Amino acid sequence: MTLTIAELARALDARLWGDGSLAILGAAEAGMAGEGQISLATSAAYTQKLAPGDMAILAEGTDPEALGLKAAVLVKRPRVAMAGLTKAFDRGPEIAAGIHPSAVIDPTAEIPDDAAIGPFVAIGARVKLGAGARIASHVSIGRDTVIGDQVMLHPGVRIAHEVTIGHRVILHPGVSIGADGFSFVTPEKSGVEEIRESLGERSEIREQHWTRIHSLGGVEIGDDVEVGANSTIDRGTMRATRIGRGTKIDNLVQVGHNCIVGEDTMLCGLVGIAGSTRIGNRVVLGGQVGVSDNIFVGDDVIAGGATKIFTNAPAGRVLLGSPAVKMETHVEAQKNIRRLPRLYSQVAELRETVKKLMEKRSGDDLEEGGRSDE
Amino acid sequence: MTLTIAELARALDARLWGDGSLAILGAAEAGMAGEGQISLATSAAYTQKLAPGDMAILAEGTDPEALGLKAAVLVKRPRVAMAGLTKAFDRGPEIAAGIHPSAVIDPTAEIPDDAAIGPFVAIGARVKLGAGARIASHVSIGRDTVIGDQVMLHPGVRIAHEVTIGHRVILHPGVSIGADGFSFVTPEKSGVEEIRESLGERSEIREQHWTRIHSLGGVEIGDDVEVGANSTIDRGTMRATRIGRGTKIDNLVQVGHNCIVGEDTMLCGLVGIAGSTRIGNRVVLGGQVGVSDNIFVGDDVIAGGATKIFTNAPAGRVLLGSPAVKMETHVEAQKNIRRLPRLYSQVAELRETVKKLMEKRSGDDLEEGGRSDE
Amino acid sequence: MTLTIAELARALDARLWGDGSLAILGAAEAGMAGEGQISLATSAAYTQKLAPGDMAILAEGTDPEALGLKAAVLVKRPRVAMAGLTKAFDRGPEIAAGIHPSAVIDPTAEIPDDAAIGPFVAIGARVKLGAGARIASHVSIGRDTVIGDQVMLHPGVRIAHEVTIGHRVILHPGVSIGADGFSFVTPEKSGVEEIRESLGERSEIREQHWTRIHSLGGVEIGDDVEVGANSTIDRGTMRATRIGRGTKIDNLVQVGHNCIVGEDTMLCGLVGIAGSTRIGNRVVLGGQVGVSDNIFVGDDVIAGGATKIFTNAPAGRVLLGSPAVKMETHVEAQKNIRRLPRLYSQVAELRETVKKLMEKRSGDDLEEGGRSDE
Repeated sequence: MTLTIAELARALDARLWGDGSLAILGAAEAGMAGEGQISLATSAAYTQKLAPGDMAILAEGTDPEALGLKAAVLVKRPRVAMAGLTKAFDRGPEIAAGIHPSAVIDPTAEIPDDAAIGPFVAIGARVKLGAGARIASHVSIGRDTVIGDQVMLHPGVRIAHEVTIGHRVILHPGVSIGADGFSFVTPEKSGVEEIRESLGERSEIREQHWTRIHSLGGVEIGDDVEVGANSTIDRGTMRATRIGRGTKIDNLVQVGHNCIVGEDTMLCGLVGIAGSTRIGNRVVLGGQVGVSDNIFVGDDVIAGGATKIFTNAPAGRVLLGSPAVKMETHVEAQKNIRRLPRLYSQVAELRETVKKLMEKRSGDDLEEGGRSDE
Repeated sequence: MTLTIAELARALDARLWGDGSLAILGAAEAGMAGEGQISLATSAAYTQKLAPGDMAILAEGTDPEALGLKAAVLVKRPRVAMAGLTKAFDRGPEIAAGIHPSAVIDPTAEIPDDAAIGPFVAIGARVKLGAGARIASHVSIGRDTVIGDQVMLHPGVRIAHEVTIGHRVILHPGVSIGADGFSFVTPEKSGVEEIRESLGERSEIREQHWTRIHSLGGVEIGDDVEVGANSTIDRGTMRATRIGRGTKIDNLVQVGHNCIVGEDTMLCGLVGIAGSTRIGNRVVLGGQVGVSDNIFVGDDVIAGGATKIFTNAPAGRVLLGSPAVKMETHVEAQKNIRRLPRLYSQVAELRETVKKLMEKRSGDDLEEGGRSDE
Repeated sequence: MTLTIAELARALDARLWGDGSLAILGAAEAGMAGEGQISLATSAAYTQKLAPGDMAILAEGTDPEALGLKAAVLVKRPRVAMAGLTKAFDRGPEIAAGIHPSAVIDPTAEIPDDAAIGPFVAIGARVKLGAGARIASHVSIGRDTVIGDQVMLHPGVRIAHEVTIGHRVILHPGVSIGADGFSFVTPEKSGVEEIRESLGERSEIREQHWTRIHSLGGVEIGDDVEVGANSTIDRGTMRATRIGRGTKIDNLVQVGHNCIVGEDTMLCGLVGIAGSTRIGNRVVLGGQVGVSDNIFVGDDVIAGGATKIFTNAPAGRVLLGSPAVKMETHVEAQKNIRRLPRLYSQVAELRETVKKLMEKRSGDDLEEGGRSDE
């Protein structure tokens, strides 16, 4: 794809400096640009790597003339410009228009005329596919699933039966939507149930076989959701597991059955959310965060990487640690742990001093007439 | 599927109240039931959501008449009833009877007459498939693998060569059984080996290339095992990795090569078990639990979410924390850490007081004749 | 496959003892060898399990005659011998020579004559495949991807467009290489950006929609890399994500966009590395280790299981804990936490004693004339 730098500036809603007629063939990091590529210099560190004669995207306030550039696009918030820039040049995967002859599509499925469906795709009975669907190779879609417009399903995506997927949803390779929930019961109370009730005491240990609770609910995924490679979102038991509009999920994330995840929320790589938990809107859970089952994480909560959330978290809280606590509490606790060696020596010293004081005291007492302290 | 409420009560081995001839078309959470659906009211909170005229499954001891219900099924342990109820209404995925013409099956494989095999399935040489097998699209099964009766393999399951799988096993989408173990060796001792032997000291750092130890052992999976979406169970080195009868494994779980996992054990989402570790019977490992290689976790151990087990755990222990310790030790340690700010001020105050006492002492000593303490 | 024990000794560059003409049909753990199998007795524990008349691989220094063996191979470093032994007997998966008729290969792709390509494989435009490629069923390879010689791609591997893969690379089932990075931006500063800048303070909470930053960079994977089942390596934003030569990656590992992982490094199961982080050469990250985005982990760093690395780690460091600290600091901190109950009682006792001393003092003072301390 080719643009002029003036067209690019317009697309990014940004200010052009220099010769707007120059052709741009692609983009690169500052210092790595080849012929016809524009450099992205989104910070002072990158700006230093620019060479005279380069074309660059710069933060407003930088002087392209002083840098000896050939042309520049000046943007207010460089990361936002990056979104527009990368979108302009992304050619993405290639899926030929139409339906590949190897695809196996149930005759009752509704497929729009403009769908692009790759090889080895299997689509079940009564599936409804929205306009502009792009479905890569090896995808399977179970019976009675409904999918919105302009979705992109990457290779090997597994969508089960009775799932609802919104518009413009992107599912990356190997994603599983709507597998059965991990829900079992023992005829008698299980060890885990006893521990939870008694806070650690178990009356006796006995046989326990797990009986399956089947998952009748489906999954509902809102518009503009993206789910990363090999992530898994299980179906609900009696009602659907839900992912709200605009929420972004990274790779290898597990969302358990019955969970309700809000809108514009972000779940980073390897996050695990156990069953029946609710996550609010605009929540950000860092990589490897874990959330227990049946709890509630309020709107706008931010949890740093590897935070483990075992109890309800009120809206707006910033969490760290395992078990998760308020950021400042965690920082304080870590500091307190680091300072322990000093505390230990202070206490040892104190004990020594006090011991001497006591001995002295006894000595004095003796001298002063044998009064007993104790 | 349609049942009368009397038939449902019989299926759940529970007591019927009211008009047993009413038809049930499905089930829903209390407060969300549509026409013909029975409400599941398994707790007081759900019971309050019932409306007069509803049909419901209630815990024994609840009064359906006072709630104005049309009919009810009264059960002793509602979660157990839920297992029966959801099983009764689960239609599951749809796999047409017979072998889909696109499937590629080696002529030496033994396929029962009643198998349902979906599109794009690849089955290798000498594979034996038990009666009633349901194999969804895109599954691959490697040469010489033996599979029991009544298994359900969901889309995209990967079973390697020389694997044994029991009866009634369920493998969810994207599961990998029998990939090569993660086992390498360096010609000289590696940094990790040195650290383990010396507890942290390394004599020098040098080149180390990893040479692969191949995995000749397979995997043996017992009857009634279930493995969640995108989980991975690696093959053993010289003998099989084993998963015992009745064990349930959630999504995105990793079981390393040579592991032996017992019976009726439960591994929740994102659990990782490193190579050659043994896990006992009826063990429950919560989400994101990690277990080191070459250790032993005894029968009936329960480990809370995100517990990291680095050393052998005796039977029956309840574990929490990283490194894992007994639940009560962990709770105590957390409390001790939370109380540290108070301890720090107490010690600071003590030091101040003792300092004064010492000064006083010196003053007294001077007054009393200049005896030196130190 | 059959070898004589003399041939095996030669292949392992080891010393033969006894009758070299004996045929070896396979290998097994000591105590589990069947007819014609050689026992691997790599430690004293295994040596005890040998029976008279066995054939065995032993560590140099063991006496095969005293054990009554029929023949033995004496090796210097048994784990290294194991690599050679298992390689000799590994038959691996079976992929028929040639291209399976069901495979869908773009006419512009370059496929070597000696390639073995299984059923349901999809290969895109202009893909270049090196000599001796073995590609199992259900693999997809995106347009313009270049793959080296002698690679092994297991079932269901997903390689996206514009990826480069070296020689002798092994990708296990379900691996995703080159999915889009998890990179989003909000038009205004997001809550996470504010928290990072202000260390916990947020001025206000507001709407934030995530705009996608597309991933234009690919992935470059060096020679002799191995990636475990269902692991995911995302493509870079402007330049490629890179995995260095000889690096081994276990199952369910996430490597984020723009990461640069060095050579001969080892990432164990469920490791997560966030975007734009650099990992050095010969680094070993244990299971479930997490590494934050945009940091640097130096050469030869070793991090124990479940270590969470939030800040740069200098070369050669051995890390443990969350947040990661030097091994000795972590061990010390754990000890300090374990000793807290004793510290609490010491301080309580000290307070009691000092209180008494103070009371005594006041009493003395009163007796001595009522001087006030404070």
